Amino acid sequence: MSSAFPHVLLGPGDDCAAVRPPGGAMLLTVDQVIERRHFVPGTPLDLVARKAVARSISDLAAMGATPWCALATGALPAGFPQSDADALCASIKKWAEHWRCPMVGGDLATMPDASSPLTLTVTAIGVAHTSGQVVTRAGAKPGDHVYVTGALGDSFDRATGLGRHLTFEPRLREATWLLDTFGSRIHAMIDLSDGLGRDAGRVASASGVRIELDADAIPRNAGVDDWRAAAGDGEDYELLFCIDPSAAAPSACPGADAATPTPLRRIGTVAPGHGCVVRSAAGCFDAEALGWEHGSTPSMTERHPPQALP
Amino acid sequence: MSSAFPHVLLGPGDDCAAVRPPGGAMLLTVDQVIERRHFVPGTPLDLVARKAVARSISDLAAMGATPWCALATGALPAGFPQSDADALCASIKKWAEHWRCPMVGGDLATMPDASSPLTLTVTAIGVAHTSGQVVTRAGAKPGDHVYVTGALGDSFDRATGLGRHLTFEPRLREATWLLDTFGSRIHAMIDLSDGLGRDAGRVASASGVRIELDADAIPRNAGVDDWRAAAGDGEDYELLFCIDPSAAAPSACPGADAATPTPLRRIGTVAPGHGCVVRSAAGCFDAEALGWEHGSTPSMTERHPPQALP
Repeated sequence: MSSAFPHVLLGPGDDCAAVRPPGGAMLLTVDQVIERRHFVPGTPLDLVARKAVARSISDLAAMGATPWCALATGALPAGFPQSDADALCASIKKWAEHWRCPMVGGDLATMPDASSPLTLTVTAIGVAHTSGQVVTRAGAKPGDHVYVTGALGDSFDRATGLGRHLTFEPRLREATWLLDTFGSRIHAMIDLSDGLGRDAGRVASASGVRIELDADAIPRNAGVDDWRAAAGDGEDYELLFCIDPSAAAPSACPGADAATPTPLRRIGTVAPGHGCVVRSAAGCFDAEALGWEHGSTPSMTERHPPQALP
Repeated sequence: MSSAFPHVLLGPGDDCAAVRPPGGAMLLTVDQVIERRHFVPGTPLDLVARKAVARSISDLAAMGATPWCALATGALPAGFPQSDADALCASIKKWAEHWRCPMVGGDLATMPDASSPLTLTVTAIGVAHTSGQVVTRAGAKPGDHVYVTGALGDSFDRATGLGRHLTFEPRLREATWLLDTFGSRIHAMIDLSDGLGRDAGRVASASGVRIELDADAIPRNAGVDDWRAAAGDGEDYELLFCIDPSAAAPSACPGADAATPTPLRRIGTVAPGHGCVVRSAAGCFDAEALGWEHGSTPSMTERHPPQALP
């Protein structure tokens, strides 16, 4: 029994953990972080642990959920030092609790070779928003306005392998504020893990609509000169949401940092049809051809060049 | 929404699954299966999937729980054929549903090298027994009788890499029957994944007691000539439980196969003190020195020779 997390009845160490279930729906997700796919060798283990936890927490945020508890696995290369294994476990626990998500179980195992890639998984369980609303990808309607939180692009520093893909802040508080404020007028939401173009395409596909983005409106991180780089970058972990046009246009919301509101930027519109396009002065581009292979760091994957549509 | 599993509100395909929580406590566990650690290359993928699911389901059984839902990950070697990935996912789903445990989410990713070991994880969530009882490893009391289900030894066929470690039946029905029948007189339980000696030692340690086993009473599978081989074999996935001596000595209980009851065999006694020993005509042996490194297949791990105690 953990006094900080009274719903954890039995923590790690037995065959299973025991947890008091939440009153509303539970949200469940699992994600992986693999060396040389999601981080470069030599990345500080604390940042590897942080990314593994934050990716799954970001999936909870994308449903409007609040973390409840989590489990993790580590598959360690042969010969991985025990002190590093201990530090990795401590970091996973620390970051999970940072987002109010007690780590209730896990498993460490050793892979057969020293060259096997360090592989972490985090299963995160969340509680639906207090209203009971669960925001899927499938609810976008023609006429909806399309927004993103924060800014996009340049999540991966090619020189060092570091960058925001390791240090992003899951948009938990923003998602809760959106549901608190706009309720069922938030029609669809997704976190941008594979790039704006590709993930917006997923919302369009799940909702049976067409999403039209305005290239000039896409918010770019400092140093990102081109909308293509912003729309094609993977691992921004910003939220994209589709909101009923009757909602008062929001321009910012509270975030993890109480002193700095998170910008909200309208970047497009939902229309009848299918697919996702970006309109710029140069033409209309297929947005789904932008983006990265699922979850890979940009340096390790082919960039998909934007295709001009006829 | 799955009609077979009405508590699954939203299955795979979105950022998270949504599940109606159970009324009682939830039990949570995660376990891994790694190529060349837990199965040999060339093992049929359907059996790899079965083992990955069954290991986590067995952990639920060891708490007296019933499966509720599960999530899985697969980290695939580079170049793993898409048809094999599809077959693997279908097998994971099939086996999970076989044990009434709908697979509600998952993630597939590709590892950097073709030589990277295929690595699966299964997070399983269960519901506590209808009485609310959750059987940990920590409740054994001096005077308790120590039992095992089934028989032990020879779970891994050295010639083929196949065997019961791939095809064992998690003891779900047995655990539920024990709690239905004996309730709070079941004081402690564990599933034998790392060998009787080592896992009985874990119960002794968690409970702050000494466990004394009778070598001649340890039930052996056909072809297992020696109590040492039975007590040291990993991956039996039988249940060991400690029961109040006031309970009528059970000799069998219903199992997954309705036609064949599962034998229950008393193999020892709980005493004050600490540690776990096996008494035979040849002397008294430290049981914890038997057993396998966590979860490894016997062929890949050093056997720990039994140490005679002074």
